[in-house]
Amino acid sequence: QELRCQCIQTQSDFISPKFIAKVQIIPEGAHCNRKEIIVTLKDGQLICLDPESEWVMNIIKKIV
Amino acid sequence: QELRCQCIQTQSDFISPKFIAKVQIIPEGAHCNRKEIIVTLKDGQLICLDPESEWVMNIIKKIV
Repeated sequence: QELRCQCIQTQSDFISPKFIAKVQIIPEGAHCNRKEIIVTLKDGQLICLDPESEWVMNIIKKIV
Repeated sequence: QELRCQCIQTQSDFISPKFIAKVQIIPEGAHCNRKEIIVTLKDGQLICLDPESEWVMNIIKKIV
């Protein structure tokens, strides 16, 4: 289980779904007072996305 | 990176967001020919959800 926030900063630039290997959505909770969305790219990079960015929800809808 | 499908079976029963510590969305890809949605509950349990279940998308929207 996460013990603290995992994202120091978030990126708002669009990322195409074809580069995304996994999306992790972590609701705010005892460990962190803000929700976090972390994508793992196919090259292994981990990127924190801005949950407020419009395109983030669209990407999630597209994947699900 | 995942090397194969992670879900043997999926659960379609509703899970309240308050029990959810994390949602992982894994698009289909070279490693697995179906998309997978895995939630980690606050008690540490891992549960595979049916991506086609209506409530799954609603839960994700609620969390994001």
